[in-house]
Amino acid sequence: MKNIKVGILGATGMVGVEYIDFLINHPWFKISTLAGKKSVGKKYGEAVKSLKNVPREVEDIEVVEPDPKKFDADLVFSSLPSEAAKDIEVRFIEHGFPIVSEASAHRMNPDVPLMIPEVNPEHLELIRIQKKKSKGFIVTTPNCTAVGLVLSLKPILDYYGISKVVVATYQAITGAGFPGVPSYSILGNVIPYIKKEEEKVSEETKKILGRFNGDSIKYAGFPVEASCARVPTIDGHLEAVYVETEKEVKVDEAIEVFRSFRGEPQKLNLPTAPKEPIIVTDLEDRPQPRLDVNTGTVPGMSIVVGRIRKGESNNVLKYFVLSHNRIRGAAGTAILTAELLLAKGYLE
Amino acid sequence: MKNIKVGILGATGMVGVEYIDFLINHPWFKISTLAGKKSVGKKYGEAVKSLKNVPREVEDIEVVEPDPKKFDADLVFSSLPSEAAKDIEVRFIEHGFPIVSEASAHRMNPDVPLMIPEVNPEHLELIRIQKKKSKGFIVTTPNCTAVGLVLSLKPILDYYGISKVVVATYQAITGAGFPGVPSYSILGNVIPYIKKEEEKVSEETKKILGRFNGDSIKYAGFPVEASCARVPTIDGHLEAVYVETEKEVKVDEAIEVFRSFRGEPQKLNLPTAPKEPIIVTDLEDRPQPRLDVNTGTVPGMSIVVGRIRKGESNNVLKYFVLSHNRIRGAAGTAILTAELLLAKGYLE
Amino acid sequence: MKNIKVGILGATGMVGVEYIDFLINHPWFKISTLAGKKSVGKKYGEAVKSLKNVPREVEDIEVVEPDPKKFDADLVFSSLPSEAAKDIEVRFIEHGFPIVSEASAHRMNPDVPLMIPEVNPEHLELIRIQKKKSKGFIVTTPNCTAVGLVLSLKPILDYYGISKVVVATYQAITGAGFPGVPSYSILGNVIPYIKKEEEKVSEETKKILGRFNGDSIKYAGFPVEASCARVPTIDGHLEAVYVETEKEVKVDEAIEVFRSFRGEPQKLNLPTAPKEPIIVTDLEDRPQPRLDVNTGTVPGMSIVVGRIRKGESNNVLKYFVLSHNRIRGAAGTAILTAELLLAKGYLE
Amino acid sequence: MKNIKVGILGATGMVGVEYIDFLINHPWFKISTLAGKKSVGKKYGEAVKSLKNVPREVEDIEVVEPDPKKFDADLVFSSLPSEAAKDIEVRFIEHGFPIVSEASAHRMNPDVPLMIPEVNPEHLELIRIQKKKSKGFIVTTPNCTAVGLVLSLKPILDYYGISKVVVATYQAITGAGFPGVPSYSILGNVIPYIKKEEEKVSEETKKILGRFNGDSIKYAGFPVEASCARVPTIDGHLEAVYVETEKEVKVDEAIEVFRSFRGEPQKLNLPTAPKEPIIVTDLEDRPQPRLDVNTGTVPGMSIVVGRIRKGESNNVLKYFVLSHNRIRGAAGTAILTAELLLAKGYLE
Repeated sequence: MKNIKVGILGATGMVGVEYIDFLINHPWFKISTLAGKKSVGKKYGEAVKSLKNVPREVEDIEVVEPDPKKFDADLVFSSLPSEAAKDIEVRFIEHGFPIVSEASAHRMNPDVPLMIPEVNPEHLELIRIQKKKSKGFIVTTPNCTAVGLVLSLKPILDYYGISKVVVATYQAITGAGFPGVPSYSILGNVIPYIKKEEEKVSEETKKILGRFNGDSIKYAGFPVEASCARVPTIDGHLEAVYVETEKEVKVDEAIEVFRSFRGEPQKLNLPTAPKEPIIVTDLEDRPQPRLDVNTGTVPGMSIVVGRIRKGESNNVLKYFVLSHNRIRGAAGTAILTAELLLAKGYLE
Repeated sequence: MKNIKVGILGATGMVGVEYIDFLINHPWFKISTLAGKKSVGKKYGEAVKSLKNVPREVEDIEVVEPDPKKFDADLVFSSLPSEAAKDIEVRFIEHGFPIVSEASAHRMNPDVPLMIPEVNPEHLELIRIQKKKSKGFIVTTPNCTAVGLVLSLKPILDYYGISKVVVATYQAITGAGFPGVPSYSILGNVIPYIKKEEEKVSEETKKILGRFNGDSIKYAGFPVEASCARVPTIDGHLEAVYVETEKEVKVDEAIEVFRSFRGEPQKLNLPTAPKEPIIVTDLEDRPQPRLDVNTGTVPGMSIVVGRIRKGESNNVLKYFVLSHNRIRGAAGTAILTAELLLAKGYLE
Repeated sequence: MKNIKVGILGATGMVGVEYIDFLINHPWFKISTLAGKKSVGKKYGEAVKSLKNVPREVEDIEVVEPDPKKFDADLVFSSLPSEAAKDIEVRFIEHGFPIVSEASAHRMNPDVPLMIPEVNPEHLELIRIQKKKSKGFIVTTPNCTAVGLVLSLKPILDYYGISKVVVATYQAITGAGFPGVPSYSILGNVIPYIKKEEEKVSEETKKILGRFNGDSIKYAGFPVEASCARVPTIDGHLEAVYVETEKEVKVDEAIEVFRSFRGEPQKLNLPTAPKEPIIVTDLEDRPQPRLDVNTGTVPGMSIVVGRIRKGESNNVLKYFVLSHNRIRGAAGTAILTAELLLAKGYLE
Repeated sequence: MKNIKVGILGATGMVGVEYIDFLINHPWFKISTLAGKKSVGKKYGEAVKSLKNVPREVEDIEVVEPDPKKFDADLVFSSLPSEAAKDIEVRFIEHGFPIVSEASAHRMNPDVPLMIPEVNPEHLELIRIQKKKSKGFIVTTPNCTAVGLVLSLKPILDYYGISKVVVATYQAITGAGFPGVPSYSILGNVIPYIKKEEEKVSEETKKILGRFNGDSIKYAGFPVEASCARVPTIDGHLEAVYVETEKEVKVDEAIEVFRSFRGEPQKLNLPTAPKEPIIVTDLEDRPQPRLDVNTGTVPGMSIVVGRIRKGESNNVLKYFVLSHNRIRGAAGTAILTAELLLAKGYLE
């Protein structure tokens, strides 16, 4: 149907490789350019061999520099490290590219939408403000830990109101890229610190759940208190969530609130939209990263919520949420955002 | 000096083996009887070979049944599973033994002290109430997860007052005994559920931090909201703690409050008392189970607190705490409690 | 096309669950009966929830007893533990069922074929001898460690001749079933012992590579010296193989010998036959269990051979081979064997 | 008694930190200088905080450059990476320092002894040849994998003669230094390749077991065929060894041959010499890295041999051997070699 050429910045990294499977068979997007830093000139398959066995179709594509002139693309995905993203992404915007970026560099800029398509599709209107200044524009997706949290909070916020969130995380090693965490540091261990992560989870949550008032976003007002830790799992960020709500909570009702949640991508039937963005498990010891991270109609795109229970007061809801950090937390949400951009006419 | 004969119930289990090193060179206690269930008649070294290489001195002791008649002891430690403990411990009390038990079976009985010697030594007076009914008596030690939490909360409670606690845990596999968690279930995974653990952490915390009013304990009144998960570490329960305090918190001051904390065992200079019950680390990514679980003058007996920071309000303190689940969380606290019993004259 | 009803004995075990995905969409076989021991009366999805999320189609099937009368099947797969298999399988044979079993109980019986369809399809003729005595019959598949070894040895044997094999293994925990290896025993560890495994690898290799002379199998004559160890991986048995050959070996030639190998299943184009039974990797640090265990056209059915190199003499070939222990090493080879039985007319 | 000042090159690495505990309380050696590359000017405790909590005594020592002029030492230990060692060690020799190095750079030089003190103490006489050319000299210790293998082969060679060795290894991640192996590469995985390792194991084994004929070493003549793999363990290289012997082997006898082995360090009662260099375990599933790596009177200095069994012929002996890669395989053997140097008068 559509035929949009897409390039990927940071295509050889831990998240970059996760775009490939989604895009190889995508009905709208076609991979045209793959950029990496250390692997320029190498074949893509060779460049990422330590990370993944990639499909034949992309094995022999030559990796190019992250330079706008090398890109033959209608849309650019950026999976760059934040430091690199700062300048490179600006250069691509100036060259007129629309960018969907998971890098943190520009997430908190007032004019830049920070997107979870099911949660805040209306924030895309910020693009109009960007377009007054440049031909290209940038849309960002959140920190991998924030995505699962916020997507799970959205229906609770809408139904009960939220006055406080306390969250502790169990984050997979792939969240740190490659080579990332040394094995000596994490094998049989937990590292209770991830640089700037707690700040990001707190601030980004408030921005995404904020209200767009026509020309800017008014942040959500409740505190979000995060404790972030790395654990020896491969994929899947698990989070222990404690929420104080404005209205009284009933567990059965909350389960139904999670289960029935649908967003714009589901209504528009976007290609990468899972049927259920939030899957509720009623098994007593789930969700578990290794067993549940790919649950749902689009593997890696649904979050799984479990152990839904009340706290000691009637205004406290507790649960665990699991999200695939490289897919829903990164590549998948970026692709879903691009689909939403296309569906809403922002790529014309 | 003293020469107290001690027997161990459940000596062949995951925690049972941790008593040995402490008792082998203990100035007051001498191992006289080792009881196990499945290994009756076997030599102790053979019975625990999958768990630990034990010292020569105990290798050839024959494991006996958990029967009071088989025990030649002035004091009995119990490391029994809770189900078994229910009846067996009662039988030992009836035979006149003083018991220090880490089993959960009798922890919440109104007349039974639930002890962390540094936190609530005055609760030992409940023994007098027990002694009105029987010759023997029982003193319990808390759930392994509660110990680290409560020991870290004690100085905060005393200095700032506490109005709410939210805690998420990263618990080592040894907390589940042996064979315990199947490797298929935990390798590269997290299990966000430990049966009855969250309830224990909540209730036991309130009992231990409760006030003894002469004949019973008035529980602490603040909510304790726990989310408990198992992670693939061998030893050391790590916990992400969020505390709302009554007075405003300053971080530097809180650090000093933790650091300067000393309890009765330190004042009495008990053999198994670490110099500092709470060690504060100022390394940004610590405490870590594998690197820090044995820190301090008595390995496994100090808890380590780190990443002490404020929340979004001035009445919120956040930190991580690590405690050795088999030592401070079990065998070590039991031995320290026995030392306190002896020092306070309860074993005469 | 065909429509064969199949039942599974041991369907709720670590290997049992691996049959499901293969059979759900199978062109010839339809699942009719699922038997388990501890889960009789439960729904299948509930019974195996700790192992795998199974497809909707089988979730609600009720697990039945391993009793021939409960089976409505044209063919029975057995994934029983060896002890149980001894009697139960005999009972099914007596009731006239054809059985394909991965249990070790009857593997070494002289009249029982021990099958890797690519290696020794002619051994199926032993069935005729069985059929003289009973209506039903049994065909077995090898120990999961033997499968990868033997499949890799077959082309070497045919091309160079073999005079000695020395093999050391790195076996995944799923090879031990569920609950299997306790996490305390294997986390950050290696266990250099698997009961009876080294004997099985040695004896089964000689039987499978033996010659069928019309009424019995003459075992291969060379020594097979195995050292078997368990490592903390989930799926995929890796093996370090040292082979002394009769003719001189050249590495490039050996690579081609592995690569060009095809067996009867490939010639017959059986549904579960991978295009290449042996995939050769030329990446210097492969095959690796986590990255390569599902390589090939039928995930889990190809073995991957790498690091092919000569030894200090011209008659020594060394390599590593990886095989999926639950698929090629168990369920997959059983299904492929059943397909061969059907294709060869043994199920009529 | 003695009072030898020692400096350490590469003191901040994965092995460097293992020298500290041994030297802190050493009766002969006193730490005087600690050199590192990236941490020059930092305090030692800070420089190695990700690796180990070091004792107070060395915490505040300032790390210096690997420059002979910065060294106040009678003896220098080198734990440098091989590339760096090439030039730096030569510079130290030229400045007249005696060096004991675990780096591979100079191991295979004809004039350089490659030492396992229990195995080839007579090779130290090569120092005399070096001393004809320079004031300083260098003695090396073997690759961490070779040490355990060779130490276990020595008594077998002496008693039975050896005609062939085939070995497969299960090597701990600390063998790769820090940051070393990325966690993504090894978690739940095995990597069947370690650069140049197999060559080192083969060649070094033959050198160490070679005969010193007065002015050079005649290498041992049998083939040593190695397959080396990395597994997710922290410390302890395990090896599956297959040996063809010249004389017939009896298992009970071989056990006694291992057990009764003593070397020069035991005879001289050197401070770091374990009472038994080879400990034989008769538990059926041992040695295991996590449980056995510190067995013996000097933790980490004994190797543990188990599963001793015959092969299919009478001239084949098979066993597993475990050695602590950072202690017996590196720092410990270096210190023991230095003690031998001192005892034999080479440091005067």
